[in-house]
Amino acid sequence: MINTLYLPELREMLAENDRTGLQEFCAALHPARVAEFMEGLDAGEMWQVLQATEPDVRADIFSFIEEAKQVEIVETVGPEGISRLIADMPADDRVDLLSEVDQDVMEQTLPLLPQDDRRETLRLLGYEEGTAGALMTTEVARLSQTLTVHDALEAISRQAQDLETVYYNYVVDEQDHLLGLVSARDLVVNFTRPDTQIGDLMQRDVVTVLVTDDQEAVAEKVANYNFIAIPVVDHHRKLLGIITHDDVIDVLQEEATEDAHRSASVDPLEDGYLETPWPELAWKRGVWLMVLFVAALLTALALRGYEEDFQKVTWLVLFIPLVISSGGNTGSQSATLVIRGLTTGDVRLSDWRRVIRKELAMGLCLGGSLALIGYACAVMLTRGAPDDAEAAQSIPTVWEVAVVPVTLLLVVMCGTLTGGLLPLLFQRMGLDPALMSNQFVAGVVDIAGILIYMTVAMAMVAGLW
Amino acid sequence: MINTLYLPELREMLAENDRTGLQEFCAALHPARVAEFMEGLDAGEMWQVLQATEPDVRADIFSFIEEAKQVEIVETVGPEGISRLIADMPADDRVDLLSEVDQDVMEQTLPLLPQDDRRETLRLLGYEEGTAGALMTTEVARLSQTLTVHDALEAISRQAQDLETVYYNYVVDEQDHLLGLVSARDLVVNFTRPDTQIGDLMQRDVVTVLVTDDQEAVAEKVANYNFIAIPVVDHHRKLLGIITHDDVIDVLQEEATEDAHRSASVDPLEDGYLETPWPELAWKRGVWLMVLFVAALLTALALRGYEEDFQKVTWLVLFIPLVISSGGNTGSQSATLVIRGLTTGDVRLSDWRRVIRKELAMGLCLGGSLALIGYACAVMLTRGAPDDAEAAQSIPTVWEVAVVPVTLLLVVMCGTLTGGLLPLLFQRMGLDPALMSNQFVAGVVDIAGILIYMTVAMAMVAGLW
Repeated sequence: MINTLYLPELREMLAENDRTGLQEFCAALHPARVAEFMEGLDAGEMWQVLQATEPDVRADIFSFIEEAKQVEIVETVGPEGISRLIADMPADDRVDLLSEVDQDVMEQTLPLLPQDDRRETLRLLGYEEGTAGALMTTEVARLSQTLTVHDALEAISRQAQDLETVYYNYVVDEQDHLLGLVSARDLVVNFTRPDTQIGDLMQRDVVTVLVTDDQEAVAEKVANYNFIAIPVVDHHRKLLGIITHDDVIDVLQEEATEDAHRSASVDPLEDGYLETPWPELAWKRGVWLMVLFVAALLTALALRGYEEDFQKVTWLVLFIPLVISSGGNTGSQSATLVIRGLTTGDVRLSDWRRVIRKELAMGLCLGGSLALIGYACAVMLTRGAPDDAEAAQSIPTVWEVAVVPVTLLLVVMCGTLTGGLLPLLFQRMGLDPALMSNQFVAGVVDIAGILIYMTVAMAMVAGLW
Repeated sequence: MINTLYLPELREMLAENDRTGLQEFCAALHPARVAEFMEGLDAGEMWQVLQATEPDVRADIFSFIEEAKQVEIVETVGPEGISRLIADMPADDRVDLLSEVDQDVMEQTLPLLPQDDRRETLRLLGYEEGTAGALMTTEVARLSQTLTVHDALEAISRQAQDLETVYYNYVVDEQDHLLGLVSARDLVVNFTRPDTQIGDLMQRDVVTVLVTDDQEAVAEKVANYNFIAIPVVDHHRKLLGIITHDDVIDVLQEEATEDAHRSASVDPLEDGYLETPWPELAWKRGVWLMVLFVAALLTALALRGYEEDFQKVTWLVLFIPLVISSGGNTGSQSATLVIRGLTTGDVRLSDWRRVIRKELAMGLCLGGSLALIGYACAVMLTRGAPDDAEAAQSIPTVWEVAVVPVTLLLVVMCGTLTGGLLPLLFQRMGLDPALMSNQFVAGVVDIAGILIYMTVAMAMVAGLW
């Protein structure tokens, strides 16, 4: 929902070009709220509001505007106008933005940035997407261990404007090797002992990530340790930057979206659903649909072997979708539970025996229940039909209809075991278990379902011997 | 994977009852790492390690032990031994733990807590699970607006031991009404101007949550605003507590798990997959399986109307699973994309026209491609079979087999539109769109698929007129 609370006021101030009013509006509210209230404006109007504010507030507000709109603003305003704002952004956000805008605009904007910012941006642009390097920012307080608490507070106070966070500050040697961590908490706690040396205070066992680490691993580390930020180092433990909690939350949400997409056989989208152009969306969906389609063709192939049998015993056809979907549904349930368990660390590879036991129990219990209900319904469905006399003779016996419950029990058990074990197998082979989508499990169980159904039918229905 | 790096050393120190060694081990490492290295120990051994440490380090390490093990430790040690540790825990963690342990143990432990802690615990236990109240902690710095920066730093420094965070500090009046926010950043930045009054420094536009707000809404707010913590207030804007970023990450992961479970038609589990007792698991899966089973029975009912037709034209049976799964798969894709879009705020209810347009385009494009391949395969499958002469006469014409591609196109379009619109409809009706599981969409599309298939067949296959 777009927040339209202040929209009329904003529009009025814009129409009257009331810079003082706009400036006061931006200063009074949290930058995130200003961004929220501007959502109804177009890129040009947003820029007009931003221009009325102080430069540092401007960068703050801008960072809360959604990315698609940011790109629009940059491309509307052009390199000359926007370069100051881009220079004021935190390094990580700046890099994210520049890698989204038009190549030309980026190339024209880069030379307009101050030399330091430009170099840093180029360096960060060099890290591969999805790694700690691409996620980090370089604006972190570096302290020497000989500083006192008082001097450290003073130093941070001076630099604070340019720091992403003042809450975690890192102690380094002359070559920037990471020696320890001093949190703002440590400093505040020792505020009454201003002469304490940082070296005596710092935590030496600092948990770090490598610049090449995968962003998912980084996010898990920060989440497990309840950190506000984590330092990024190279192989020589040289401090390169930090990743802050807000970026970690973004990564976790991104990964949750990716897993959700995979579970529905969609190749994860990089942008939002509405922003993704349709050829890309069609491709990311089509690829997996084809794979599933081929699996479904195998069911047709399997059924072809029984074509004559269906001619003799047509009532068997009625329960094909029921049998298939029961197996697929239980299989998806098991797969999702195990995949999510593996993702959250609740299930481990070494738990495979427990998974088998659990899924066997589930299969018996759920399959048994569905079989009972299915039997009752199957008897009714095969009995109630005779609207012509001829059909009456083709009514199957109660014994024959038992094909349905027996099949249901077996198919559901096949579903729970397949769904439970395939993700573990994928994990074991070093693949992402989330690749094992619900539909893939369902596809495998579908074919097994047809084979089970017809084998049981062969054994139990008189006409098919 | 259990980290066994230090396990032999730990076991040796435990065997020798080397308290100094254990204490040094716990002091040198980050509490989260100590907890990690202890994972291989049993509850009794963990308690032995914990006992060797300083009380405040002990509570820190304990808070990083996974909950199931925490409960085991509490129940092994018993109320007398454990009450000190429980009193030292942050209020929110304490409440979480006590609501997990055996009722008897809880009732025996509560009276052993200091009066303040006991009252607070009882109060927090009173908030409904899943609300801001149940998530918050009460240990937050409350400042008066007449304090100077210097006094505030001193005050926080004194209380720091008992505070969950020193990074966000709240300014309140005598009745605890929230007036403003002073972050540690504000204090550090103004460290060189120690006489500045807090009232002149504080941010007045504080974003808050109500104590009764849903935890999902709280998490979204913190994530959107990049906060480290958010204050919890009552209807009179009285400060009750705060919720910190680490709890928000837990909530986000919990919600992602819930959504994943729902998407596979499992009623969200409260505990992990392995911890959930099987009758509960069976119930949470069985309920939805039944619903889906009833939907699948409707396909059997729909098919019954065409039983005679299958007897005449048996090759139609081959493609039933193919038609059904193609519709179901595209439907799940669309539903997942839209549901995830709604969850992340990327898709809004007002975007329904764009969703329709997009899904129409997807349906045409994906349905068209599947139809082409499906046609080629269907022709081959209906042709290759004749192992006996009699069957040869039942080979359908190329025109008749076109039933398959026409149906595929229509069913896929039905799938994309149903999958895209049902979640929006649920959202519109005020229901959680995540309730619209993939299988539910698939179930709806299954029935539609059968009806489309048979209607198309009636129109195109000679024997059925």
